[in-house]
Amino acid sequence: MLPWRGELAGRLDEHVIESAMLRDNPLGDPHERPLWVYVPPGYEETDERYPAVYVIQGYAGHVTMWANRTPFRQPFVETADLTFARDGAPPCVVVYVDAWTAYGGSQFVDSVGTGRYHSYLCDEVVPFVDARYRTIADRESRAISGKSSGGFGALITPMLRPDLFGALASHAGDTLYEHCYLNEFAQCARYLREYDGDVFRWWQDFRSRVAFTKECDMSLTMVLGCSAAFSPDPDGTPRLPFDPVSGVLRPQEWERWLDWDPVRMVDRYADALQSLRAVWLDAGTKDEWFLDLGATAFRDGLLRIGLPESASTSSSPKARTWPSNTAIRRRWPGSRTDWPAEELVTSGEGRAAPRGRGPTTRRC
Amino acid sequence: MLPWRGELAGRLDEHVIESAMLRDNPLGDPHERPLWVYVPPGYEETDERYPAVYVIQGYAGHVTMWANRTPFRQPFVETADLTFARDGAPPCVVVYVDAWTAYGGSQFVDSVGTGRYHSYLCDEVVPFVDARYRTIADRESRAISGKSSGGFGALITPMLRPDLFGALASHAGDTLYEHCYLNEFAQCARYLREYDGDVFRWWQDFRSRVAFTKECDMSLTMVLGCSAAFSPDPDGTPRLPFDPVSGVLRPQEWERWLDWDPVRMVDRYADALQSLRAVWLDAGTKDEWFLDLGATAFRDGLLRIGLPESASTSSSPKARTWPSNTAIRRRWPGSRTDWPAEELVTSGEGRAAPRGRGPTTRRC
Amino acid sequence: MLPWRGELAGRLDEHVIESAMLRDNPLGDPHERPLWVYVPPGYEETDERYPAVYVIQGYAGHVTMWANRTPFRQPFVETADLTFARDGAPPCVVVYVDAWTAYGGSQFVDSVGTGRYHSYLCDEVVPFVDARYRTIADRESRAISGKSSGGFGALITPMLRPDLFGALASHAGDTLYEHCYLNEFAQCARYLREYDGDVFRWWQDFRSRVAFTKECDMSLTMVLGCSAAFSPDPDGTPRLPFDPVSGVLRPQEWERWLDWDPVRMVDRYADALQSLRAVWLDAGTKDEWFLDLGATAFRDGLLRIGLPESASTSSSPKARTWPSNTAIRRRWPGSRTDWPAEELVTSGEGRAAPRGRGPTTRRC
Amino acid sequence: MLPWRGELAGRLDEHVIESAMLRDNPLGDPHERPLWVYVPPGYEETDERYPAVYVIQGYAGHVTMWANRTPFRQPFVETADLTFARDGAPPCVVVYVDAWTAYGGSQFVDSVGTGRYHSYLCDEVVPFVDARYRTIADRESRAISGKSSGGFGALITPMLRPDLFGALASHAGDTLYEHCYLNEFAQCARYLREYDGDVFRWWQDFRSRVAFTKECDMSLTMVLGCSAAFSPDPDGTPRLPFDPVSGVLRPQEWERWLDWDPVRMVDRYADALQSLRAVWLDAGTKDEWFLDLGATAFRDGLLRIGLPESASTSSSPKARTWPSNTAIRRRWPGSRTDWPAEELVTSGEGRAAPRGRGPTTRRC
Repeated sequence: MLPWRGELAGRLDEHVIESAMLRDNPLGDPHERPLWVYVPPGYEETDERYPAVYVIQGYAGHVTMWANRTPFRQPFVETADLTFARDGAPPCVVVYVDAWTAYGGSQFVDSVGTGRYHSYLCDEVVPFVDARYRTIADRESRAISGKSSGGFGALITPMLRPDLFGALASHAGDTLYEHCYLNEFAQCARYLREYDGDVFRWWQDFRSRVAFTKECDMSLTMVLGCSAAFSPDPDGTPRLPFDPVSGVLRPQEWERWLDWDPVRMVDRYADALQSLRAVWLDAGTKDEWFLDLGATAFRDGLLRIGLPESASTSSSPKARTWPSNTAIRRRWPGSRTDWPAEELVTSGEGRAAPRGRGPTTRRC
Repeated sequence: MLPWRGELAGRLDEHVIESAMLRDNPLGDPHERPLWVYVPPGYEETDERYPAVYVIQGYAGHVTMWANRTPFRQPFVETADLTFARDGAPPCVVVYVDAWTAYGGSQFVDSVGTGRYHSYLCDEVVPFVDARYRTIADRESRAISGKSSGGFGALITPMLRPDLFGALASHAGDTLYEHCYLNEFAQCARYLREYDGDVFRWWQDFRSRVAFTKECDMSLTMVLGCSAAFSPDPDGTPRLPFDPVSGVLRPQEWERWLDWDPVRMVDRYADALQSLRAVWLDAGTKDEWFLDLGATAFRDGLLRIGLPESASTSSSPKARTWPSNTAIRRRWPGSRTDWPAEELVTSGEGRAAPRGRGPTTRRC
Repeated sequence: MLPWRGELAGRLDEHVIESAMLRDNPLGDPHERPLWVYVPPGYEETDERYPAVYVIQGYAGHVTMWANRTPFRQPFVETADLTFARDGAPPCVVVYVDAWTAYGGSQFVDSVGTGRYHSYLCDEVVPFVDARYRTIADRESRAISGKSSGGFGALITPMLRPDLFGALASHAGDTLYEHCYLNEFAQCARYLREYDGDVFRWWQDFRSRVAFTKECDMSLTMVLGCSAAFSPDPDGTPRLPFDPVSGVLRPQEWERWLDWDPVRMVDRYADALQSLRAVWLDAGTKDEWFLDLGATAFRDGLLRIGLPESASTSSSPKARTWPSNTAIRRRWPGSRTDWPAEELVTSGEGRAAPRGRGPTTRRC
Repeated sequence: MLPWRGELAGRLDEHVIESAMLRDNPLGDPHERPLWVYVPPGYEETDERYPAVYVIQGYAGHVTMWANRTPFRQPFVETADLTFARDGAPPCVVVYVDAWTAYGGSQFVDSVGTGRYHSYLCDEVVPFVDARYRTIADRESRAISGKSSGGFGALITPMLRPDLFGALASHAGDTLYEHCYLNEFAQCARYLREYDGDVFRWWQDFRSRVAFTKECDMSLTMVLGCSAAFSPDPDGTPRLPFDPVSGVLRPQEWERWLDWDPVRMVDRYADALQSLRAVWLDAGTKDEWFLDLGATAFRDGLLRIGLPESASTSSSPKARTWPSNTAIRRRWPGSRTDWPAEELVTSGEGRAAPRGRGPTTRRC
């Protein structure tokens, strides 16, 4: 493997999608978005239709980052390609979606603070792909997958739109908010001392210099962006869910965040979850935001609403921060997704796919 | 200053108090307790009466630890002595109270999980001292002070018994529980994986080996002891306020903890707090349990119920983890406590007293 | 600025250079290498000749990584372009050199362990560029710049070939080896316990799985690669400069490393260094390999051999780990390099250029 | 076990020894020193003679610290007592020696910078004990033991005075100086920026405030004290072995330190080491000063000069930082020390003795 380029066995098309949903979004972000669609080897030689897996990114990701090269590792796109070309996974169309905002991310929800990223994904990107590619255009053959904030998006999107997505894979998805976010809030309150408790003064500073040169930058970016997504004021201004001086929770705003906590959404969306063909969860054992506990809590929720357990313990090669995993899978005979998702839904940018997961059934 | 001994200008009496309240306590801990009482220089030459400052300890402290010697530092008892002998503080009787339990601490509350440590302090130790020493035996001249869990005890004791205590000093007192405890809970859920989620299996292991040789020991000790204090079952068994596997909060138990969060107690005990002569709070800026935020939140509560602000910013020499402070004081003319508490209420074991705090009025 | 692409005012040419020097290199790495050459705006409209700045990378870098995109930051190539297009820097040709090896890096030296990367840079890349671009093909107008291992390369290359390079900029360049490397060696001895003290067993493991999923990977990669560069056996096998079980230094191998310590090379290469037109050093104040001390020690060496001090203190926007700097510059009237190097020689991949450095003289 | 006191089965005598060697020492430290001597149960009922184990402390230790009480742990003196009273160890006299200085420690050497602590131990303390207690007053029955700096003292004292000491136990003893000290030096150079590179300005500051409230205090104390011990100027002024601005080693001073590196002393003192009856080494696996590597290197040295290996792997209950060990023991039939040292030579202040070490032969 040469470090500076890789050939694909399949084909990657780089589109620009013009989104009506994102036009005039509150942050003034572009409504023309990059969209990458991959077709597996053999696609061009047949007229078969294929399942589709939508891949979304972690906080601050934008789609061109999938092309980043790092030493000793393959970009995700190439690893996914090998899954089909070498590892015998059932062929799929893979769709790389961009949901970047000026704050770094959108959490894949519709919000007056950031824009209609959920609708854009469901009502624009999906039809765009189905119109241009030979996908099997039904929920049974459409999966969504992501890591971190993308893992959150992969959890909530099928809950909200079970008509579109029949399977999901969430790798270290944001969940169990009292553990994944509260510590950040406390840190942010401290960071904001330098800015008199005014997150917008920090934002102004952040935008005026080289990004991520201060220790506070990462936490504040994420908390500001999630506030824009989860608890904006009616005019779209992000409102922090805590007092920026004392760190005391603001109950109303915090409640709006909790409404988006997948662990707390399980019962509200039980029907949707029960209808899923397959769920894959992992988060290692020592995720820095305790997302391993979140995955456990979400799995407990699935079991509570009656999904059968099919846990497999595998050591995940994903990353240092989540070295082992907590997994639940559901399978039905004749699945047409055939769990390509399993093969694709890996941890993220520039990391290789997990391997050695149990048997997969070929598409029939 | 020689490292291996120090002479006192005053006198330290080492008593053993036989406590009826602690007899047959649930943990089988001794009901005979060490109690140290200090009288300042001059006490023996006069027949004056003196204010009294009660000093309580952080988690896992027991009273004999006040005698520990460390390099380049004075034990607390000697530093306090110097306050009177050299620094001209108004003379006080200082009472060193032991509230240790088999779990390390009692949080200074009455609990079926640990014993009646609040009552023991208020209804046994105070009368014991007043009977044997020339104290001014009224609330106006009685203060309480402590650090960490002792800082928590110093906050709640006067709220519960304003008839006994008229002033308090809390140094990095446990408060604002969503920030000071939740991160510990998440860590504990991870630590308990090694013990199949059973905290009592860890406890058995902990008791069978040299203590604090595992990374998990400190957090689990504290969380178990606080569960015994705050959320015991009716039979006294400590019940964790979170699911030990997923870390999900158990709402009922967590609510019992929150009932003891000083920030949340402010409104319930507004009358008691308003009646206090003096309140001293500090917690630095980077306490590992975010007690700096807790102190800020508690101060905000005091202001909300109408205490006048008299903040002073001082750089606290206490310890690396709480280098600066957030302080509020209330003073009234003619105070007979005269803020000896200020001079005594320092960070704890083996650390020197803060200095350079503003003017103090001599006892008249 | 859009996150997913940037337009250049100048032009970037992506070449492949076929290197005779690297053919049949010991690691079997490609001898066809990517080489990027940038020409500034205006280049195409004139027939002027331009100074050239060679930019080399840190450990494990390969040239295509310059194109990586990260959130809220510009790739280096675009930042450098702005320097000319917007900031008025004197126009330069910028050459992006690839010196990657199977171990991650070459340290830009000729070695039987890795290959002839120094000669490739000096005797192949430089002539390749001068033959194809309107450079001012003399040492007075040729600078070299890099960060970390690239900062090391930028220090030693002009020492060895003052006939080719007349200026250098080293950002956190590897130097003062007793501080930058010894701690790594001790860590590596510990890491190798898992591999019975056999670095090649680790290497085999590393190559068989997703890279950088173990804590040990980064240190061992670097130490193995530097051993290949600095202390290979005659047959090219890397030989560690320490006993892999006890960490005890192997004096002979360690001496070979020290021969490449820029701090120790100063006196040997005093003539070359004295002949330089300009030297730029920075390394912040808290570099994780103590390269701030290294920069200070190297500067002390320059002063000792008689270079005039022209220190400027600037706060470097580079990265958290090296927030301020230690700089020395030399300038002579009529410099034809005109310190474009200053404007280009920034910290590295995907980071923006420092700004606000003092006056620059335009090329005449 | 009550936390606030423990009864001894044996007897602890607290002496003050008036040292001629320490009179007029360069730091003006007291020449009257506390000396604690413990006699095991049964001592008073017989007229037998006993082996003696001398116990010395880590950096900044003074003898009264042995009495410190910590939660859930026994003080060392009580643990050692149990070894005889409960665990059936062969009875010994145990001698607790004070070698504190104004800089925190003496490294147990004779130095114009600190005083004659080596001679005081060997020529005053030993005779003092032998004159007053029924010891077996020969080298075969005299051992020395310590942790950290005390572990260093336990290594060098028998090398220098094999006529006095026939056995040693070193727990995480300072050794392999390039790994245990160099990182400290680099840190110290950074710390001293705040003091313009002047360690005495720091010292002045340190003495004027509460100790150990700044991050730099611990490293600077130790490095200053070791400089006083190892590399004082002729007038006794400590001289740092590195340039305090750049961190560059000062070869002459550094050489004086290396002369005291036990790893480097092995060959010079081979005869003394070969004559020892017993050597115990341990240092865990992740000591913060890499003393685990030091212990390995020292053991390698012992093997090189011909001591037989008798390694035992035991998991040490000592402390988080050194959880397992690297041990070598030598035993001869009829040893009269009978390895009480094994039972006593534990890691330090307030920590329980290791257990489960192999068979011990009773004194005969």
